[in-house]
Amino acid sequence: MVQYAPLDRTLSALADPTRRAVLEHLAGGGATITELAEPFGISLTGMKKHVQVLEDAGLVVTEKVGRTRQCRLGQQRLDDVQAWLETYRRMLDARLDRFGQMLERQKGTTP
Amino acid sequence: MVQYAPLDRTLSALADPTRRAVLEHLAGGGATITELAEPFGISLTGMKKHVQVLEDAGLVVTEKVGRTRQCRLGQQRLDDVQAWLETYRRMLDARLDRFGQMLERQKGTTP
Repeated sequence: MVQYAPLDRTLSALADPTRRAVLEHLAGGGATITELAEPFGISLTGMKKHVQVLEDAGLVVTEKVGRTRQCRLGQQRLDDVQAWLETYRRMLDARLDRFGQMLERQKGTTP
Repeated sequence: MVQYAPLDRTLSALADPTRRAVLEHLAGGGATITELAEPFGISLTGMKKHVQVLEDAGLVVTEKVGRTRQCRLGQQRLDDVQAWLETYRRMLDARLDRFGQMLERQKGTTP
């Protein structure tokens, strides 16, 4: 079986609306865990868990600064997700092409 | 908090290498649960669970034909995943633009 562990982690991390919203927030600039928790109305503990999942997937990096934890976007730019989507779409397109060719051949043989 | 339940289900369904491989297999044409289980070397029960997750996400449709369950790709073409990725990339690009403009302004004020 093919193993895509990093892609699994990325997709799993993205499969939650709060985590996607955290990425969108951080795309506007870095923030502390407290600054991230407030607008989403969730506990610091809850936000820490979400940030940990994003960090494990390489989507976010964090740094302890005094008593706060500063978060910013990581190096992982979702290129792997984009690449898989494109491969899959090419497979779907190839299938449509084959279907079209089959229809053409049928037209050719039907008087 | 923003709710994107269908996108959550799609991303969750994709976050597994066997489920992604099943989609790739079905892009080549329909198959029964048994035909899907064999090449992946997993049990029929295991494959049924994977197919159920893909079906709940609208990525696969199944139909009982006699004693077998025929599977094919559903209407869900991952457009929602693609749309979110594009929105996120636009946010990242906008951030790079702002950073570039800030550098330009700094050059302008530094003799």
